[in-house]
Amino acid sequence: MEAKQRAVGILLFPGFELLDVFGPAEMFGLLSGTVELVLVAERAGPVTSAQGPQAVAAHDFATCPSLDLLLVPGGIGTRTEVGNQTLLSWLRAVAASAEVVASVCTGAALLARSGLLDGRRATTNKMVFPWVVEQGPAVHWVKQARWVDEGDRITSSGVSAGIDMSLALIARLYSVETAENVARAAEYEWRPDPTWDPFASLYQLGD
Amino acid sequence: MEAKQRAVGILLFPGFELLDVFGPAEMFGLLSGTVELVLVAERAGPVTSAQGPQAVAAHDFATCPSLDLLLVPGGIGTRTEVGNQTLLSWLRAVAASAEVVASVCTGAALLARSGLLDGRRATTNKMVFPWVVEQGPAVHWVKQARWVDEGDRITSSGVSAGIDMSLALIARLYSVETAENVARAAEYEWRPDPTWDPFASLYQLGD
Repeated sequence: MEAKQRAVGILLFPGFELLDVFGPAEMFGLLSGTVELVLVAERAGPVTSAQGPQAVAAHDFATCPSLDLLLVPGGIGTRTEVGNQTLLSWLRAVAASAEVVASVCTGAALLARSGLLDGRRATTNKMVFPWVVEQGPAVHWVKQARWVDEGDRITSSGVSAGIDMSLALIARLYSVETAENVARAAEYEWRPDPTWDPFASLYQLGD
Repeated sequence: MEAKQRAVGILLFPGFELLDVFGPAEMFGLLSGTVELVLVAERAGPVTSAQGPQAVAAHDFATCPSLDLLLVPGGIGTRTEVGNQTLLSWLRAVAASAEVVASVCTGAALLARSGLLDGRRATTNKMVFPWVVEQGPAVHWVKQARWVDEGDRITSSGVSAGIDMSLALIARLYSVETAENVARAAEYEWRPDPTWDPFASLYQLGD
């Protein structure tokens, strides 16, 4: 049986968090032969991360191929992009046909502002939890979770949580064995329990 | 007390492994204000990773600023680069003045071929251990280790092990508290024990 070919898009914007993008990219990238990774941004070309290094968006919103999965990273740039109507509209357009739209860290703020999490359970980075919550008053925010899987939406906690979420998504879309093989190839100790979140208790997240 | 400013270089080459580069880049990048991240390659500009996405080398070997730390990633491209004398010579030149030269995964093959690990203890990816060992007959290869710290050389096991090694290096160069703060900011469960390596036993690594 041949695995379904999937186009996995990852959004870039100025000030994206490096590991939010490249942790998931590594995991999906290890599904060699069945996944095409597509870096996409409002403008194609080099995009500067929060940490300084640049990655190249191969496509802008207009030329981006149809995506099966879309992953939205966080990073300090989300503080600006929550007001970017072009980007929020594009997220809604992609979500209308994608199998899954996922976020890492404060990427959930962009999904929330686009309305894509309304009425859904979702999580995000614990250090800046209150700011993200403000972006989505109609979202059921989960304070203690490594990731929250709502089927066509899946949101993860901060930065490295995107790796665990990606492996969970691979387990769901392919198989648990495939996810375990990917984790092993990356010598990564996968935590397959979405409720494992030792970071939530480090912050006062209110009632 | 102001922390010492450091230029942390990360080598790119065609076929570099994404997480080998951007796991450490995230950790050092979280030391905001005290670290400048420098992506460097034989030719400046976009460099294509093993997984497809491109990162931008801001400098070529000639224009690269003086580096305090150099990190060498692995990836399928190492199979070609072990024969690249220009690259191996540049590694030797940087190592002559850098505080630390580090490798992730099969990046150790490049350090080994440059002679920079001769007479030293070192480790690498466990899945392709035999191939890396062939690149450095005068290296004391360690089969079970998340990373091996030899002072001015530090080598890690596969892919995600580079994150743990980077945190160990931050603990040594800055403080354990700083490393813990960085890990917490990335919501990463740091394993501070360099002998923790559940992946070595998955392969037959010989005597």
